[in-house]
Amino acid sequence: MPDVRVSDLIIAKRDGKAVLPNDLAQLIYAYTQDRVPDYQMSAFLMAAFLQGLDATETAALTDAMLHSGVVLDLSATPGIKVDKHSTGGVGDKVSLILAPLVAACGVPVPMISGRGLGHSGGTLDKLESIPGFRTNLTIHEYQAQLEDLGVVMIGQTAEIAPADRKLYALRDVTGTVECIPFIASSIMSKKLAEGIDALVLDVKCGKGAFMKTEADARRLAETLVGIGERFGKDTVALLTRMDVPLGRGVGNWPEVVESIRCLRGETEGVEDLMEVTLALAGEMLHLGGVADSPEAGRAQAQAAIASGAAFEKWGALVEAQGGEVSALHHPDQRPGQPAPVEVKAPDTAQGYIAGIDALAIGYAAVDLGAGRRTKEDAVDPTAGLVLLKKPGEAVQPGDVLAQLFSRKGSQAVADITMQVQGAFSYAASPPVATSLVLDRYTAGGWAAS
Amino acid sequence: MPDVRVSDLIIAKRDGKAVLPNDLAQLIYAYTQDRVPDYQMSAFLMAAFLQGLDATETAALTDAMLHSGVVLDLSATPGIKVDKHSTGGVGDKVSLILAPLVAACGVPVPMISGRGLGHSGGTLDKLESIPGFRTNLTIHEYQAQLEDLGVVMIGQTAEIAPADRKLYALRDVTGTVECIPFIASSIMSKKLAEGIDALVLDVKCGKGAFMKTEADARRLAETLVGIGERFGKDTVALLTRMDVPLGRGVGNWPEVVESIRCLRGETEGVEDLMEVTLALAGEMLHLGGVADSPEAGRAQAQAAIASGAAFEKWGALVEAQGGEVSALHHPDQRPGQPAPVEVKAPDTAQGYIAGIDALAIGYAAVDLGAGRRTKEDAVDPTAGLVLLKKPGEAVQPGDVLAQLFSRKGSQAVADITMQVQGAFSYAASPPVATSLVLDRYTAGGWAAS
Repeated sequence: MPDVRVSDLIIAKRDGKAVLPNDLAQLIYAYTQDRVPDYQMSAFLMAAFLQGLDATETAALTDAMLHSGVVLDLSATPGIKVDKHSTGGVGDKVSLILAPLVAACGVPVPMISGRGLGHSGGTLDKLESIPGFRTNLTIHEYQAQLEDLGVVMIGQTAEIAPADRKLYALRDVTGTVECIPFIASSIMSKKLAEGIDALVLDVKCGKGAFMKTEADARRLAETLVGIGERFGKDTVALLTRMDVPLGRGVGNWPEVVESIRCLRGETEGVEDLMEVTLALAGEMLHLGGVADSPEAGRAQAQAAIASGAAFEKWGALVEAQGGEVSALHHPDQRPGQPAPVEVKAPDTAQGYIAGIDALAIGYAAVDLGAGRRTKEDAVDPTAGLVLLKKPGEAVQPGDVLAQLFSRKGSQAVADITMQVQGAFSYAASPPVATSLVLDRYTAGGWAAS
Repeated sequence: MPDVRVSDLIIAKRDGKAVLPNDLAQLIYAYTQDRVPDYQMSAFLMAAFLQGLDATETAALTDAMLHSGVVLDLSATPGIKVDKHSTGGVGDKVSLILAPLVAACGVPVPMISGRGLGHSGGTLDKLESIPGFRTNLTIHEYQAQLEDLGVVMIGQTAEIAPADRKLYALRDVTGTVECIPFIASSIMSKKLAEGIDALVLDVKCGKGAFMKTEADARRLAETLVGIGERFGKDTVALLTRMDVPLGRGVGNWPEVVESIRCLRGETEGVEDLMEVTLALAGEMLHLGGVADSPEAGRAQAQAAIASGAAFEKWGALVEAQGGEVSALHHPDQRPGQPAPVEVKAPDTAQGYIAGIDALAIGYAAVDLGAGRRTKEDAVDPTAGLVLLKKPGEAVQPGDVLAQLFSRKGSQAVADITMQVQGAFSYAASPPVATSLVLDRYTAGGWAAS
């Protein structure tokens, strides 16, 4: 693509004009092949960031990124293949529970996940905290395991949407990350490449989410579902709150431990986590054609936990991908687990926990070693924290609010202790319990509005 | 400057926030030293294009570009050094007349000019069409000639505002050229580097100008004068119309020929050109302290033409810079001048010339060989055209509208003939003659409004 043509596209977008799908496809294709320089692409990205991309442009961008790599063929596996994607939150270990749970109910789940970014954890890092667990299956292994077991969980391979990877690296250093059409096309190009038939989205909003406002989250949900439907995939988005960490474990292994407990039916105290998990499971089972409604799907999922089928599927999945199954049965005996450091409630803590700042907890987990401040940072699989108090629970000065797990030095841990303590707020009476699932969006529109 | 700091500046500008002068200075400094990659700078430029830069930011950008190179010292030459800059038009040979004219009246004129770009010619290309004329003087020669002769005309050297050159090359391919703060800081950084004390600006608007609308041209004039005043230089901007080519010659040597005639006092038929030239000369002489008012300066300039002093200064300037002075005395005998090709009025031409599309004529001159479609194109010094009819003049079918000079093939010249013919429009009665100088802007505001 000659420079002058690229300039024309930049100028058109800069002036608020729509770019033709074919032009956008050519631009992305040429960029992926290193025939458009980064400095032109970053000018285009900034112009698109500020002037917007309409639904047609966003779909064209998704299509171009999708077809920059392989689109997996899962036709050897019968049934409607359904995946779930979350826009990311703190303590969001839903995928670990959901994938085996839905597969146990008979819907194949091919899941390709990413790593943690910023304050938000990533499913891939969590899976890799299971000793021996392999996330880098070949495409053939991925296809074969899905056919065999009905569930497979891997990381993004180099073959999938290389344009998205190249564009994301550029967006990351040019102030063009937080843009709904870019975010949506990035998510959807990778999910569509998996070979799925339908998709459930968990679009989070609030302090601990990437979308801070409900309005932005609604717009993202609409964009994501719009793309899914344009590509002929049944797509449902749930709008869920992310102000407080989901469940109690935050960090890789701490979240795996909590997932194991949930799959075993030990769900007391993590009702928030199970509310979101079961809502998503219900949608997936409904889309997968094994439940007549999301509500019926939800009941089937609960039954699969109660019967032990879900936990059994989890064991089979971990074993198939080389993980140590013994770790699932004795999660507290994982080798190398550091001793916990307690965070205590201050003297001013009286009455009830009013809230826990998810963003502060997310960054505390990163600082403990569970995530990356930069892409180059190594992750400590055992690092993280467990919240012993959650909103609505009674509290007194000196009560243990959280346990921290870290290999960092004592000064660092002491600093993080205060950081975690400061994330809690208190009230004289317990806050009113509300549903985390705010709304549901499909091609038919919003359920609640 | 670390990547993450640059990202912060990009994001701040993207979100419409003002960037601190010191941060902008550091950004430009680091960019000039290749320590900020092009892809980050182009994202910043696009964000600034769409979100704007305020007066403080624009001044800081100018300052950073100015101090990326040398600022010339002209203190060895006594008097108030005054230059003029035009935002560019078609047939705009004003500098060629103005520089010797103002110098002949006792105001030193140090002029650094650029090359033609797009449909608009450049003073440097015009000077170089004079056989032997050297525009690449050293800084020492530049200083010495000004001291000696009171006038010097050169091209931009590598030492002057290198940041502007690097930024302009990036803007050119990233859709970020037509942005008033960028245009103004680019102009002013180069002009301030010349070592001037005061500056007159010819800000053009209309079909043949870069600023198509009067509103944009007014904004540019205000921005330019604002920068000049912030740097302690008396600055005056004239707002002039550029819908029709200025004078009759368009192209390098054709414009030199017309300038010679004007300096000799042969100004019949080029009243439009002299109106603009004398208005600018009056301002320069007033700013230079040799005239009590712009009007008095205008009269002094007219006297310097009538006395032959202006033409004598022009001869001395050409001689000092190595040009063949004989060419000035016998401009029609320049070696290598191609035979003219006539453009005739069509059968539909009846009555009077109503207008001549300056943009179409500008591009016709480029196509004849007088300018560059791309930066790499070579310029033919003799190529161009002369308009034999101008607006207000009577016309009949078959009258010669223009003479073309070109070394291009006959098919190309035939195509251009039609292009030039199509640039003329006709009316039953002559258009109302109006002044080309629309308004005047100084630190005190607009004169007419």
